[in-house]
Amino acid sequence: MINWAEYTIVKTENMLRRLDTLEFPLSYHVGILGTSGFTAFGGFFKICKPKKEEKVFVSAAAGSVGNLVGQYAKLFGCFVVGCAGTKQKVELLKEKLGFDDAFNYKEERDLKSTLQRYFPHGIDIYFDNVGGEMLEAVVANMNAFGRIAACGVISDYTNSGKHTALSMVDVIYKRILIQGFLLTDFSINDYDDFMSKTMDYIRAGKLCVLEDISCGIESSPSAFVGLFRGDNVGKKIVQIANE
Amino acid sequence: MINWAEYTIVKTENMLRRLDTLEFPLSYHVGILGTSGFTAFGGFFKICKPKKEEKVFVSAAAGSVGNLVGQYAKLFGCFVVGCAGTKQKVELLKEKLGFDDAFNYKEERDLKSTLQRYFPHGIDIYFDNVGGEMLEAVVANMNAFGRIAACGVISDYTNSGKHTALSMVDVIYKRILIQGFLLTDFSINDYDDFMSKTMDYIRAGKLCVLEDISCGIESSPSAFVGLFRGDNVGKKIVQIANE
Repeated sequence: MINWAEYTIVKTENMLRRLDTLEFPLSYHVGILGTSGFTAFGGFFKICKPKKEEKVFVSAAAGSVGNLVGQYAKLFGCFVVGCAGTKQKVELLKEKLGFDDAFNYKEERDLKSTLQRYFPHGIDIYFDNVGGEMLEAVVANMNAFGRIAACGVISDYTNSGKHTALSMVDVIYKRILIQGFLLTDFSINDYDDFMSKTMDYIRAGKLCVLEDISCGIESSPSAFVGLFRGDNVGKKIVQIANE
Repeated sequence: MINWAEYTIVKTENMLRRLDTLEFPLSYHVGILGTSGFTAFGGFFKICKPKKEEKVFVSAAAGSVGNLVGQYAKLFGCFVVGCAGTKQKVELLKEKLGFDDAFNYKEERDLKSTLQRYFPHGIDIYFDNVGGEMLEAVVANMNAFGRIAACGVISDYTNSGKHTALSMVDVIYKRILIQGFLLTDFSINDYDDFMSKTMDYIRAGKLCVLEDISCGIESSPSAFVGLFRGDNVGKKIVQIANE
């Protein structure tokens, strides 16, 4: 259901089926086992094509997709640094999610040198949720044959008209790949792979599930606006009613 | 030899071997059968992965690489439009090289709408030799799953500090791929494929060889500066002496 409503009239009966939640809470199926999880999994494994020990940077790393990218990358054997917009989120990334390091981008004045500090040997993979200045700074710090999965542009959504000033000289000489993607691009095989691996990880306690649940249809507007202000930690979910 | 000199002292004898020119003029081996040809061939076939009838746009299309990209794309079965900086070059592209269409970018005020006029159904492949505003306009006119081979950034070389203002929203929603490359990235198999196909095309008179030869070491400085002013048509070659 994609309406923001307590009740919806659905005219064709076969459009609806009851979700088999398997052994997991219903909410997992809109987050870690839903679009957020599949976006993180497909974007990281299919677009970024990681190799073990590569250096991975994730922006909006406490967000619904970013936190999972970082966790998948750690489980795969990469070195992972994330950025977020509050001290609490940065602590969470380092202490609960197992990121190798993390920083609060709002406290940094020069993102290029910040990234150089966290990646003295350069960035191999960037999972981009924000675009803008952060993407510019990543390109300047990227290694040869680096890959950028372009997943979101929160900086453009909230700051229309301001585009990312990309150094194409860097893109060419470092042979950087930038690939925009949507989760609908991945195949059913990718989906099966994602579901089976992710369920195994959750069962084994290897993936931490971050949910940020508010209650009641009346909390929807503030929940939505909060996404653009960076209020949420993990998947933002509005629970309309109990099951 | 990469020195700009009439005479060079080479200390290790085995660094030099006489080029087997096969049945072609010596000059072909620094252009169409050399770096320019291999860059065009590899960039178009390996990076852009064309399908027949796709819509291809080439900037600096009368240059040493661009003219060959357009010719390879036509021979492969694509629809090809190029841009260049003089009326004479535009005529050449359309009349001698077989481009489906071409335009003089210096006569256009709004590159976005210019490209929309030449590509009413959108651009599938862009072979980028210039970066800057042209790249921005291409991204706005690109089809879903479009590919951009980033080969050169003449606009950045001559206008340092001004970067390409990329719309990452377009890159994501259209799932655009941008790939920087250098010809050293391609394999020996790619090279063999390039040489055999290109020699066949030349023998069959299917590829037009554009050379812009000036004579004498004293013509080197103006030849070099001319590259950045767009003086040359096809491969710029300085002939130091007769064979």
